[in-house]
Amino acid sequence: MSLRINIVTLGVTDVAASRDFYEALGFAASSASQPEIVFFQVGPVVMALFAKDSLAEDAQLPHGHGRAGAVSLACNLESESAVDALLGKAQKIGATILKPPQKVFWGGYSGYFADPDGHPWEVAYNPHFTIDANGAVQLP
Amino acid sequence: MSLRINIVTLGVTDVAASRDFYEALGFAASSASQPEIVFFQVGPVVMALFAKDSLAEDAQLPHGHGRAGAVSLACNLESESAVDALLGKAQKIGATILKPPQKVFWGGYSGYFADPDGHPWEVAYNPHFTIDANGAVQLP
Repeated sequence: MSLRINIVTLGVTDVAASRDFYEALGFAASSASQPEIVFFQVGPVVMALFAKDSLAEDAQLPHGHGRAGAVSLACNLESESAVDALLGKAQKIGATILKPPQKVFWGGYSGYFADPDGHPWEVAYNPHFTIDANGAVQLP
Repeated sequence: MSLRINIVTLGVTDVAASRDFYEALGFAASSASQPEIVFFQVGPVVMALFAKDSLAEDAQLPHGHGRAGAVSLACNLESESAVDALLGKAQKIGATILKPPQKVFWGGYSGYFADPDGHPWEVAYNPHFTIDANGAVQLP
């Protein structure tokens, strides 16, 4: 069971403005970025900028939860069955399942659990992402 | 200027209970952990558990900010002057400085800036942490 942090997603008010901010700080946006979501390769980790309302909707967060300074952590695994196994383990040890694992619109398979303080963890299989030998997502 | 995510700190209600949760999920706590703060090596990234009120105090967050699902990101650099330079750059491009760089009680030197949505970034020099050739913190 390889639980790890692959992506730190910051829920933001204005994706374009936040992209400008992080580019000004010295990050280079990946070509995988889109108007709705921006990806940065930060060493072995990926940082994403995503509208906070979209993040709340994607994770099926309770209304009003964590909109200020919204963050999610993502663990990218190699297969749908690995996603099922990790979310099953999270549920077994008492985690709240925010979103059961399911096929999602971007072509992958993903679910979310919440830790004891409600921090949302996405567990995902993304066929568009390359995972290296160390388990890190490598953006284009 | 090597801005990177070294540590993802989750602000939690009960550090011991959250440690139990993450250990049950399969993480192994580092020997650097203390009752007040728990560290996990998650591949090249460090995840920390810290009381959310302590996190708010450490980052000098505005009252009530981000207590639900509190998270901070940390960038560990090689020297105090590198901390000054990065926080200076953040300020120059319009970031709010939450805490000017200063010597801190744990023996290091650190400051915080906020991104456009208030996500707190700590920029720190920590003489107790080993940083490898890739810029990753390596816990004992």
